[in-house]
Amino acid sequence: MAGIPIRFGIIGCAEIARKVSRAIQLAPNATVSAVASRSFDKAANFAKANGFPPDTKIYGSYESLLDDPDIDAVYLPLPTSLHLKWAVLTAQKKKHLLTEKPVALSVAEFDQILKACEENGVQIMDGTMWVHNPRTHKMKQFLNDKEQFGQLRTVNSCFTFFADPDFLKNDIRVKPDLDALGALGDAGWYGIRSILWAADYELPKTVTAIRNPVLNEADVLLECGASLLWADGKIATFHCSFLSNLTMNLTAIGTLGTLHLTDFIIPYQEHQASYTTSAKPGFNELVTGWVQLPSEHTVTVDLPQEACMVREFANLVANIKKNGAQPDKKWPTISRKTQLVLDAVKASMEKDFQPVEIVG
Amino acid sequence: MAGIPIRFGIIGCAEIARKVSRAIQLAPNATVSAVASRSFDKAANFAKANGFPPDTKIYGSYESLLDDPDIDAVYLPLPTSLHLKWAVLTAQKKKHLLTEKPVALSVAEFDQILKACEENGVQIMDGTMWVHNPRTHKMKQFLNDKEQFGQLRTVNSCFTFFADPDFLKNDIRVKPDLDALGALGDAGWYGIRSILWAADYELPKTVTAIRNPVLNEADVLLECGASLLWADGKIATFHCSFLSNLTMNLTAIGTLGTLHLTDFIIPYQEHQASYTTSAKPGFNELVTGWVQLPSEHTVTVDLPQEACMVREFANLVANIKKNGAQPDKKWPTISRKTQLVLDAVKASMEKDFQPVEIVG
Repeated sequence: MAGIPIRFGIIGCAEIARKVSRAIQLAPNATVSAVASRSFDKAANFAKANGFPPDTKIYGSYESLLDDPDIDAVYLPLPTSLHLKWAVLTAQKKKHLLTEKPVALSVAEFDQILKACEENGVQIMDGTMWVHNPRTHKMKQFLNDKEQFGQLRTVNSCFTFFADPDFLKNDIRVKPDLDALGALGDAGWYGIRSILWAADYELPKTVTAIRNPVLNEADVLLECGASLLWADGKIATFHCSFLSNLTMNLTAIGTLGTLHLTDFIIPYQEHQASYTTSAKPGFNELVTGWVQLPSEHTVTVDLPQEACMVREFANLVANIKKNGAQPDKKWPTISRKTQLVLDAVKASMEKDFQPVEIVG
Repeated sequence: MAGIPIRFGIIGCAEIARKVSRAIQLAPNATVSAVASRSFDKAANFAKANGFPPDTKIYGSYESLLDDPDIDAVYLPLPTSLHLKWAVLTAQKKKHLLTEKPVALSVAEFDQILKACEENGVQIMDGTMWVHNPRTHKMKQFLNDKEQFGQLRTVNSCFTFFADPDFLKNDIRVKPDLDALGALGDAGWYGIRSILWAADYELPKTVTAIRNPVLNEADVLLECGASLLWADGKIATFHCSFLSNLTMNLTAIGTLGTLHLTDFIIPYQEHQASYTTSAKPGFNELVTGWVQLPSEHTVTVDLPQEACMVREFANLVANIKKNGAQPDKKWPTISRKTQLVLDAVKASMEKDFQPVEIVG
């Protein structure tokens, strides 16, 4: 960790950039060096409102930030439809890329971004925070425990929140020209990622969208779901919605054990996070109660999960910058798989909810 | 409750009959009067092993129990394929009927049983216990609270247990000639019931089975699931399995609130039962934690849920017997709706997983 911190430039002053810029400041190996908006004043106000260091450079255009030789990495919180242009340009300017999710509107776009990153030797990582929470690593240990969890059989993931009328009218996530993937891109991304995570990132064989998704007048998804099936018989379902109360449940069931939590994307509290495990439970003799109740585990989270994410990204960047390492392939591979499944959900909807084969 | 208790005869010495015969003894308005098996010795041993009153009558055939004029009601724990014959005969003998679930192999069979009950003026209720737990009534109050829960939007229900090799080879629930509905009848029944319960027993418009259910060599379902859709856009999914670790999760999400519990069918403990509610939660300013955490509620259960079931059934029987009331229609209506959805899941599987319309 020692050494000069990775210098971040932030492109766009989205709401989520407040959280992530704080994370950049919290991470021990990263610093906010610049912020850009299409309006200089907006960028200046954003820097001030979010307590950026006094020497943070303020830019009135994204291009000028990208031209700054003293920026190592860019955090890209722009609407998804703008990712292709600005992610590719970021890579071409030899800046490493931490981009908000969904990475792109499709795998085809994703691959253009990935190609630009590979050609320019820069790291890419998407902004899915929860996978970096120390709780996630602990949970994975349980899923990997063949004695306690057995073989994964099924996953159910649900992320919903109740958007108010203003959101449903004006938010970028309901606009076809900004975040055309709607609830699938914004909320379903997490469901898909959580399923892949539980399945050790093994891609499913087929994806089938659940019928009757809810669309707005502009054909943007407000609610949908899908089932994923693997060759070995594993099955998973997810549901995402802008129309139901805030809920984020994840249940992974193995032959012998069950993992369960109800705040998987954003833990209830920042500095500790819990989950329950159940291993080989059963009933008492008359089946009037359980033996081996599920047990709750609480993990201390010294660094907020989004700062863990920045730290991980900055470590990879530092390794490239200082040690001449190649960009890590694990994170872009995971991102691409998420995007592949997301594409398949859309494709299934377009094919009358028939199963769509995943070709990895 | 005062007065002579309702006298039960038990037809068949199934494992589940141990639990329910205890419940009959615990219920303040019921008593075990007789038990029948195809083997007199088996019935006698069952009575002894389960501490039945010394004057309990022992029968070596089901017919002889049904001919006993001193029996008011029959508890029927036989395999599903035998329900039609023995339920109809029970009704024709003017005995009230508490039958294990699934009530029948199909709605067509169900309706023959129902017709026999109606023609003979006897009460019918199925043996779904959890709906009688006082916790269930408390949970329903939350779902009915428009201020806290809003409108129901989605339900996810999961009931799985890991059957051992002996079960998968020999249990009646994997035998096509005994419980031909397999996991769908045994475990899926609860999922379907819980969804209907949350939806105030409004039938869905369509039911679509999830692809690739698991069947055994005799074509009996070991694992399956389905999605249910209502005209107003509500959607529900359930998953049931004999192949995954014991898990029984129910999540009902409204526009404003979420109900969640992980032991909905058989509470972890007999004398208290918990659930969580979440009403209008949100995130803190930087979206790094929640405000309004879910709250846990614990209900004291003075009488085990299966004894509450027996008490409810016996009350209805007593009202018919002593007050000349008509049999209650609420419970058979709920049972029939569960069976209708179950039929639709099967029909969807037979129609290449296309949606099947429910005609109520």
